[in-house]
Amino acid sequence: MSDRVYKLVEVVGTSSTGTDEAIHNAITTAAKTIRHIDWFEVVKTSGHVVDGKVAHFQVTLKVGFRLESD
Amino acid sequence: MSDRVYKLVEVVGTSSTGTDEAIHNAITTAAKTIRHIDWFEVVKTSGHVVDGKVAHFQVTLKVGFRLESD
Amino acid sequence: MSDRVYKLVEVVGTSSTGTDEAIHNAITTAAKTIRHIDWFEVVKTSGHVVDGKVAHFQVTLKVGFRLESD
Amino acid sequence: MSDRVYKLVEVVGTSSTGTDEAIHNAITTAAKTIRHIDWFEVVKTSGHVVDGKVAHFQVTLKVGFRLESD
Amino acid sequence: MSDRVYKLVEVVGTSSTGTDEAIHNAITTAAKTIRHIDWFEVVKTSGHVVDGKVAHFQVTLKVGFRLESD
Amino acid sequence: MSDRVYKLVEVVGTSSTGTDEAIHNAITTAAKTIRHIDWFEVVKTSGHVVDGKVAHFQVTLKVGFRLESD
Amino acid sequence: MSDRVYKLVEVVGTSSTGTDEAIHNAITTAAKTIRHIDWFEVVKTSGHVVDGKVAHFQVTLKVGFRLESD
Amino acid sequence: MSDRVYKLVEVVGTSSTGTDEAIHNAITTAAKTIRHIDWFEVVKTSGHVVDGKVAHFQVTLKVGFRLESD
Amino acid sequence: MSDRVYKLVEVVGTSSTGTDEAIHNAITTAAKTIRHIDWFEVVKTSGHVVDGKVAHFQVTLKVGFRLESD
Amino acid sequence: MSDRVYKLVEVVGTSSTGTDEAIHNAITTAAKTIRHIDWFEVVKTSGHVVDGKVAHFQVTLKVGFRLESD
Amino acid sequence: MSDRVYKLVEVVGTSSTGTDEAIHNAITTAAKTIRHIDWFEVVKTSGHVVDGKVAHFQVTLKVGFRLESD
Amino acid sequence: MSDRVYKLVEVVGTSSTGTDEAIHNAITTAAKTIRHIDWFEVVKTSGHVVDGKVAHFQVTLKVGFRLESD
Repeated sequence: MSDRVYKLVEVVGTSSTGTDEAIHNAITTAAKTIRHIDWFEVVKTSGHVVDGKVAHFQVTLKVGFRLESD
Repeated sequence: MSDRVYKLVEVVGTSSTGTDEAIHNAITTAAKTIRHIDWFEVVKTSGHVVDGKVAHFQVTLKVGFRLESD
Repeated sequence: MSDRVYKLVEVVGTSSTGTDEAIHNAITTAAKTIRHIDWFEVVKTSGHVVDGKVAHFQVTLKVGFRLESD
Repeated sequence: MSDRVYKLVEVVGTSSTGTDEAIHNAITTAAKTIRHIDWFEVVKTSGHVVDGKVAHFQVTLKVGFRLESD
Repeated sequence: MSDRVYKLVEVVGTSSTGTDEAIHNAITTAAKTIRHIDWFEVVKTSGHVVDGKVAHFQVTLKVGFRLESD
Repeated sequence: MSDRVYKLVEVVGTSSTGTDEAIHNAITTAAKTIRHIDWFEVVKTSGHVVDGKVAHFQVTLKVGFRLESD
Repeated sequence: MSDRVYKLVEVVGTSSTGTDEAIHNAITTAAKTIRHIDWFEVVKTSGHVVDGKVAHFQVTLKVGFRLESD
Repeated sequence: MSDRVYKLVEVVGTSSTGTDEAIHNAITTAAKTIRHIDWFEVVKTSGHVVDGKVAHFQVTLKVGFRLESD
Repeated sequence: MSDRVYKLVEVVGTSSTGTDEAIHNAITTAAKTIRHIDWFEVVKTSGHVVDGKVAHFQVTLKVGFRLESD
Repeated sequence: MSDRVYKLVEVVGTSSTGTDEAIHNAITTAAKTIRHIDWFEVVKTSGHVVDGKVAHFQVTLKVGFRLESD
Repeated sequence: MSDRVYKLVEVVGTSSTGTDEAIHNAITTAAKTIRHIDWFEVVKTSGHVVDGKVAHFQVTLKVGFRLESD
Repeated sequence: MSDRVYKLVEVVGTSSTGTDEAIHNAITTAAKTIRHIDWFEVVKTSGHVVDGKVAHFQVTLKVGFRLESD
């Protein structure tokens, strides 16, 4: 088996529901254009506030995927 | 339009339910005395344990709000 | 009252449900072998992705507990 | 001379001109309500982009000021 | 019991005697205007030097206090 | 309104004039191939020196842009 | 001489007297159950406040000790 | 000479031989699709263990390359 | 399949040969007393110098292993 | 060509004009006594405030220079 | 008044008495060869342990001093 | 025995062979002008790439040495 190489991209998911849902949204969207996503790690959790209430959560992720060898 | 200035304060919300709820509690309480809250970012997530179970979650936030110009 | 001493250990909880559940799993498992757990703090939040979906969340915690004096 | 105590607050200045101007704006605004400001340190430099151009720079500062003894 | 919310402020204590005394000075001064202070954590330890000797120690603290519910 | 997803890329702008100009150059160049750039944050400021003078400033930025939903 | 291997554990010492004493307490307690402790490094200094005064100092240490070869 | 702009991407190289080889593998693979790679910096070194032995080393790199001006 | 829980311990391997060998030594020694080691990550690389030459390399690792469920 | 070795020193430039000028001042002064300065990176940006206005900017730099081989 | 330039050097003071004394020792020794020392900041606090007791404290400092203009 | 004081300097070693060799080169060169070097720690590992291959590795070290008492 040859030595694998991976790439990491940084995406930000948002959700009005919660932080887990923001992660799901980020991964689902990333998976539309990236194949072989393998893992993620949270870089930052933030959000916006409107009228004194959390309007949406925002989670920044590093998403790792295997590069296809040819 | 003049250049806006914001201020950041650090608050800690707690919840026995979960981390998202702890964030909601922190923002709701902060909004009682601070106007124009615009965003937050999570600084730290922690909690206390009683009898081998999570008793409450504790989320430290930086909360940003616009200073009113006069 | 004498001066207490605590110890910190690092554990990783996983859950297919969400990050809060991963924390619960880590604490519940740690509590099987460690007495007097007092607090935790999140060190890292990550997860694995299978077929473009989050397969499980993974939360790394520092868990603090009081050392029993004799 | 007694031992002085200082307080730090975190403010964000913005400017369409540049980062130095954003710092000036933050300090000038902070000085309207805080006396005895003594120093600042930059925590973060960021900005917003509109139509492919920097619309404004945004500099987050910690601002230190001496508490008045009585 | 409702979920508590805390606030953190950053203060700098100084002392010509030592770092512990600088912490005591910061807390004592902060307690004059803040009620329900619960904990502190050291952010930075520094100092000034005059004529090749430490003139005073300077300790930057985050000070946490409970917000009174109404 | 559906939940937005953003992507972050890291670019390095250079300028012989100054740090603000290096940021402008990075954003202008990134905007040639990336649509919907929304914000940036400075990761690192550095530069090269030739003959004892600053030859150019170099600013590393994270640039955030909205992914187009379909 | 063979290549040595060390292990690090994290302990928290407390003291109502000061930070140095908190370090002494942590090391003395750790040494009751760990042999060959060689060094420590401070990870965090904090404390609790009661009635506007420092009730105790709390110092988190990494403690390194040599694993016995057999 | 105009002001150059660079881009950074994050890649992970693996090798059963060692950390230097993991770096070589990451760079060689990245160079298949990226022109003008100029430098790299190590972000993280890790690895997997099978049957009590290092199965492979894994090095995460930021890889910088010049964007071609047109 | 139930949700797995892992533990992390911190060990320091040394070697007069090089950094990779120091990692091998740390893992081999850790594996004598810990079952199910799964991964490691490098926390710090250092060393000692004698007579102007590197006497040995020293690599601090976090070592992750699965806790056996019962 | 033999393998080059560089040294890094840390200097702080000040300027009443702005941060870029503070960098220029630091490099120009360092270059009076250090030959072969090659690059710099900004470690910290701060400043002092007098009468509610920025009195001077202060930029801490790491300055890298090639050691002359003999 | 021209714009001042400062230099920072890193020194490690040791003391069998405590951390403050280690700082005093570092500053006193540094002041034997460096003029115009102005400030210090603590980078790291550590120590060595012999026979289960703290043998000496070790404090790493950055020491700042003004460069003499000519 | 009096309390020792150490100094830390930052050097960058390079090597076309690998990271360990870059460390050796840095220490050997530093030892030509510095006596009593005692330890080092790696601050950063990077390198340059030419024609899609690693041209040389570059390791930044802090090098600690004992100041001679008189």
